[in-house]
Amino acid sequence: MKVEQDLHMSRGDGETSYAANSRLQEKAILKTRPLLHKAVEEAHASLSGLSRAPAGGKMVVADLGCSSGPNTLLVVSEVLSAVANRSSCDHKSSLVADVQFFLNDLPGNDFNLVFQSLELFKKLAEKEFGKALPPYYIAGLPGSFYTRLFPDRSVHLFHSSYCLMWRSKVPDKLASGEVLNAGNMYIWETTPPSVVKLYQRQFQEDFSQFLALRHDELVSGGQMVLTFLGRKNMDVLRGEVSYMYGLLAQALQSLVQEGRVEEEKLDSFNLPFYSPSVDEVKAVIRQSGLFDISHIQLFESNWDPQDDSDDDDVATLDSVRSGVNVARCIRAVLEPLIARHFGRCIVDDLFDMYARNVAQHLEQVKTKYPVIVLSLKARR
Amino acid sequence: MKVEQDLHMSRGDGETSYAANSRLQEKAILKTRPLLHKAVEEAHASLSGLSRAPAGGKMVVADLGCSSGPNTLLVVSEVLSAVANRSSCDHKSSLVADVQFFLNDLPGNDFNLVFQSLELFKKLAEKEFGKALPPYYIAGLPGSFYTRLFPDRSVHLFHSSYCLMWRSKVPDKLASGEVLNAGNMYIWETTPPSVVKLYQRQFQEDFSQFLALRHDELVSGGQMVLTFLGRKNMDVLRGEVSYMYGLLAQALQSLVQEGRVEEEKLDSFNLPFYSPSVDEVKAVIRQSGLFDISHIQLFESNWDPQDDSDDDDVATLDSVRSGVNVARCIRAVLEPLIARHFGRCIVDDLFDMYARNVAQHLEQVKTKYPVIVLSLKARR
Repeated sequence: MKVEQDLHMSRGDGETSYAANSRLQEKAILKTRPLLHKAVEEAHASLSGLSRAPAGGKMVVADLGCSSGPNTLLVVSEVLSAVANRSSCDHKSSLVADVQFFLNDLPGNDFNLVFQSLELFKKLAEKEFGKALPPYYIAGLPGSFYTRLFPDRSVHLFHSSYCLMWRSKVPDKLASGEVLNAGNMYIWETTPPSVVKLYQRQFQEDFSQFLALRHDELVSGGQMVLTFLGRKNMDVLRGEVSYMYGLLAQALQSLVQEGRVEEEKLDSFNLPFYSPSVDEVKAVIRQSGLFDISHIQLFESNWDPQDDSDDDDVATLDSVRSGVNVARCIRAVLEPLIARHFGRCIVDDLFDMYARNVAQHLEQVKTKYPVIVLSLKARR
Repeated sequence: MKVEQDLHMSRGDGETSYAANSRLQEKAILKTRPLLHKAVEEAHASLSGLSRAPAGGKMVVADLGCSSGPNTLLVVSEVLSAVANRSSCDHKSSLVADVQFFLNDLPGNDFNLVFQSLELFKKLAEKEFGKALPPYYIAGLPGSFYTRLFPDRSVHLFHSSYCLMWRSKVPDKLASGEVLNAGNMYIWETTPPSVVKLYQRQFQEDFSQFLALRHDELVSGGQMVLTFLGRKNMDVLRGEVSYMYGLLAQALQSLVQEGRVEEEKLDSFNLPFYSPSVDEVKAVIRQSGLFDISHIQLFESNWDPQDDSDDDDVATLDSVRSGVNVARCIRAVLEPLIARHFGRCIVDDLFDMYARNVAQHLEQVKTKYPVIVLSLKARR
C-alpha cells in the first residue's frame, strides 16, 4: 500500500461518495467551532498587533486533510465568519483581514470537485456575510502533511479535522509480508503486544514529525486546532475504533470462509492508522517542546452519524438503520483502500455484511467514537 | 456560454486530451525560455537584495492558465532551473531560494491530473538538479485571471503562456442573441466592422483589467512574462488565427447544409477570443501606466505543431498529415466549448472535416501563428 497514492476519500458526489457521507466529520467541525474561532481571533490579533506589518498583510490558513465535499468549505466558512466578526468588533484590524486559504490533502483527493463548487460557495458567502466578508483566496495544496508543505514561517493557522489518526505508512515490519496480525486489519483482541508497539511507535514518530514540520512553517504566535479519533478505553486492545475495524475484519473473514477472499489477502491488509489516548498525545507534544497546549479535550460522537441523541439507551436505537448508516460512513472513507487491495467486486457485499455486524453490535451496546480536540500555540 | 465554467482544455490524458496534444504550446514555452530565465533572475535578485528580508523569505511564482499536462510542470521545471543556476552562481542568494508555485487555471481545468503527476515530477527534478534543487512547494489556484487571485503585493513573478488571447467573456452585444456575425465564430472576412469593434473593446477592457489586477498583486520589482497568440496581418479581417477559426466555421457550415447542425446554433456561437497586434498590446500597456516593457517581440510558429522546419515551402509539407495534426491540437483546446454548444455527437465528424479543410488550405500557403511574447516590470 502506498499511502500517498492510495489513501483518499471516495471521489465525486454520488451515493457512496465521501461528499454525500460525511455527516460524522461535519458534526466534529461544528462541535469544535468555538476553539477554531478562538484560534482565528488569536492568529488575527497577532497579525494586527504587528506594528511593522506591511501594507497587504494577510492571514494564511491551511486545512490539512481537507477532503472533498461540503465539509471542505465549511471550514473555510467558519474561518471567514470568525475574521468577519473580529473585523466588525475592531475597526483597526480590518486593515489586515485578507485571508489566503490552502486546502491540503493527499494527491488522490478529488480537488476538481472542490474547485468546481467554489463559485457557488462564493455566492453563498457573499449572501451570508455581506459587507463583512473579508477578501479571501483559496488554493489547493496536494501532499502529505508528514512532509513539508510550506516555506518557513509562512502560515498563521493550521486546522485539521478527522485526519491525524491516519499514519504516514503501515509500520514497516507489519508491511514486510510476514504475517504478524492474522485476521485483523488494525489492533484488535488477538493482536500480539509486539504489533501494538509497532503501531504506537509509528504514531509517536509521525506525530512528532508533524509537530516539527508545522512548527517550522508557522509564524511567531501561530496556532493549530487539531481534531482526530482517539481512544478512551485504557485497554489498547479494545479501543472504541478497534471495535469498528474488528467488525469489518469479521466481515472479511466471512468472505474468506466463502472462498471469495484469499486468507493471505486479509492477513496482509493492515491499516495505516492509530487512534491514541489523550495521554499519548500529550506525551508527544511535551517531548517535542515546540508547542504550548491551550486546550485539550476528548468528546464522544455516536457511531451512527445520523443519531444526534445524547443518551446511551440501546432500546431507542433502530440498530438495523444505524448499521447501514455506519457502513455508509466507513465505506466513504475506506472504499478506495479496500478496492485496491481486495478488488472492486467484493465491496458491495462486504459493506452489506458489515452493516449487519454493526447492527448486531449496537443492539448490545451503544458505542461512541472518542474524538480528541486540541488547540496548540507555537513556542519560539 | 459561461467562460469560467465552460472554457477548459480537454481533460485527462487520453488520445484527444490536451495533455496528449499540446506540442504547440510546449514549443512556445521552450522558445521564450531565455526571457523567463531572465525574469526569474531579476525577481530573485530583488528578493535577495532586500536587507530587511526575513528569515524564510521566499519567491512566489504564479503560472496563469497552467492547463493540465506536461507543459504545466515544464514551466515549474524552467523556473526551478533558473533559480538553481542563480543560487549556484551567487552563494549569498541561496539563503532565500525557496519557491512557492501557484498553478492557476479556470475551475474546470483538470487539476487532479496535475496533482497526481507531482510525485513523478519530484523524482525527475531531484535527479535533474541534484543538490542544486531549491526547496519548492506547488499549489493549485482555481479562478479567472480577470479577477483577483492573490492578496496585495504577494507575488514576485507571473507567467502565462497561450492564454491571454482568451477573453473574460463573449462581448455582451454579441452574446445577447441578436445575429450579428452570421456563419462565423470569430472575426472573419464577412464580419461587420461593428463586431470587430466589440471584440477589440473586449480585449482592451480585459487586458487593462488584467494589468491592474496583477500590478496590485505584484511586489515591488515584480515581473511578468506573457506569451499569447497575436496578429501579424494589418488587416484585422484576415488575421492568421482568423483563418484557423474560419476553416472550422466552414466545417460547421457543411454540417448545417447536411442538416446536422441548426443554422441558429452556428450563428449564436462566438468565441471569447481576440488575438491582438503588437501595437494594440503596447497601446493598452502604455495607457495603463503600470508596467515598463522590458521586451516585446512577435515570433511565428507553424500551424502544424509537429512541423519544426523554418522554411515557407509548401511543397515539402505533407498537407494531409499536417491537417490532422492541426485538427488534433485545436480539438484539444475547443472540444469542451464545441461539445457544450453543439452536442458531443458531431465532434468526431467536425474535426475530420476540419482536418481536410486545413489540409486544403496548407496546400496553397504555409500559414503560421503569430505569437507575441513580452516581459514586463511593475512600476511603483
